[in-house]
Amino acid sequence: MEKTLVFGHKNPDTDSICSALAYADLKNKLEITAQPARLGSVSKETQFALDQFDVEAPKLIDKVEEDIKEVILVDHNEFQQSVDNIKDVRIAEVIDHHRISNFETKEPLYFRAEPVGCTATIINKLYKENDVPVSKEIAGLLVSAIISDSLLLKSPTCTQEDVDAAYELAEIAGVNLETYGLELLEAGADLSDKTVKELLTMDAKGFAMGGEKVEIAQVNAVEVTKVYENQKDLEIEINQIIKERDLSLFLFVVTDIINNNSEVMALGDGSSKVEAAFGVTLKNNRALLEGVVSRKKQVVTALTDMFNK
Amino acid sequence: MEKTLVFGHKNPDTDSICSALAYADLKNKLEITAQPARLGSVSKETQFALDQFDVEAPKLIDKVEEDIKEVILVDHNEFQQSVDNIKDVRIAEVIDHHRISNFETKEPLYFRAEPVGCTATIINKLYKENDVPVSKEIAGLLVSAIISDSLLLKSPTCTQEDVDAAYELAEIAGVNLETYGLELLEAGADLSDKTVKELLTMDAKGFAMGGEKVEIAQVNAVEVTKVYENQKDLEIEINQIIKERDLSLFLFVVTDIINNNSEVMALGDGSSKVEAAFGVTLKNNRALLEGVVSRKKQVVTALTDMFNK
Repeated sequence: MEKTLVFGHKNPDTDSICSALAYADLKNKLEITAQPARLGSVSKETQFALDQFDVEAPKLIDKVEEDIKEVILVDHNEFQQSVDNIKDVRIAEVIDHHRISNFETKEPLYFRAEPVGCTATIINKLYKENDVPVSKEIAGLLVSAIISDSLLLKSPTCTQEDVDAAYELAEIAGVNLETYGLELLEAGADLSDKTVKELLTMDAKGFAMGGEKVEIAQVNAVEVTKVYENQKDLEIEINQIIKERDLSLFLFVVTDIINNNSEVMALGDGSSKVEAAFGVTLKNNRALLEGVVSRKKQVVTALTDMFNK
Repeated sequence: MEKTLVFGHKNPDTDSICSALAYADLKNKLEITAQPARLGSVSKETQFALDQFDVEAPKLIDKVEEDIKEVILVDHNEFQQSVDNIKDVRIAEVIDHHRISNFETKEPLYFRAEPVGCTATIINKLYKENDVPVSKEIAGLLVSAIISDSLLLKSPTCTQEDVDAAYELAEIAGVNLETYGLELLEAGADLSDKTVKELLTMDAKGFAMGGEKVEIAQVNAVEVTKVYENQKDLEIEINQIIKERDLSLFLFVVTDIINNNSEVMALGDGSSKVEAAFGVTLKNNRALLEGVVSRKKQVVTALTDMFNK
């Protein structure tokens, strides 16, 4: 039997896990044997969603085995965010909502990227295009992904399509969007048992900006000041990461899910780019970025512009 | 007024011209101001289609002017096949059916690639997804593109979706698919007034294969031997192109639209790759490739494998 593997990016967030589960479900209903997988551990937020809708986490993999015929990437396309042996496998499809970069194929494929807030919104559309009804469980996973990526519809990445999909899916899933949404975000913002290292890696992504290497880690929090209680330990760990990976900048973004802004900490030679990009002054390596909640739409674009100057 | 420009690849074929015209029409009907454009001259085949349905050719451009807000690429994504200043403009959308390579964006976009035989087939689907009816003229352009790309449904790149779209569009356009299809292909295969230089450039594409530069030119013909009457002149011109562009291989593919095979001529240090890729022996630099009609699906993939060995 020809097997197709469906997975999201490394350091998977709720969208990467839930979209992989949902898209594999859609493929199976279309009689294509697909298995969901994940490239990293399940976050508390994602686990809350899986528990709520009684769905098991997809299988953890660190490479694509030889018996896999082809793969489908969801929620990412850049090879450095994908499985390590991505260049050795046939990519049959990509379903994504990010910029396209460091991606290529030898043959034509199905590539569906849309500038919406969440991959799950596109997958909901694909169920409709294929005339397959969304089950209660899958609706629960998809609405969880949208809540997570859009910070309960408050992120500037959130489009009308995401809003419409979220309300529609919440109804199928049998949850109240606002109540369940806040519960889900709070589950993810519970950082009480996280080590310093975990805070810096649980949702970290690497970027190439103007020839420099930049890493941006983001966590959601209800009480931002609590996260910075161990600032000295965070700094020691970040400086070590900077040295190991030869980074120009490590930016730690702590996003306040109640007030919808972010307190960031910047270390590395490129720290001044943060000040220039957001018109702030770093004090004790930190600054408050009013209204900034989206790494993709607000942080990466502003920093890329500064590094390209 | 914000303007969006829609265009296909350099050395435009019928799909690149007709898909640009059709997708600009769809955008305008969705109240987005879009203008079709082209990056090269109109072939006899394309002109036949335009005359048949009384549509004017899109405007010829050699660069994107400053008053253009964003562009939409149809029928290509590789930057070397696009407008020269593609890296300086915002790419809002891509609608394509080729492999993805040498393409990147800074921001998320709408990217719709499907492994079908023709961009026009995807555009026909986009009319439906947006609930916009296809007019008689646009149906005529779209079916012409499918006939051209699929060699009247005979190419191995042709999928069931292309076949279904072709019959559906032919009916809206009010033409008999087989009769009109052969007329269109014959109009394109009339090479009687072409200079040697024109034969080698009218549908030529450059490729990077295993670190080497390869160029593949293709023409359709009813009488293949006639094209090779001036073989010596073709060779002189090809050798000059090889020298100028530092090519490892120039492959000239003359496709017989009646018998559905191709007589190729290969020059350059990489010529032996053609023999290995297709299991043939070049005699007088030429070989008959039985059943080979698709540059994309049969020629490029087989040669890329050989250059990567």
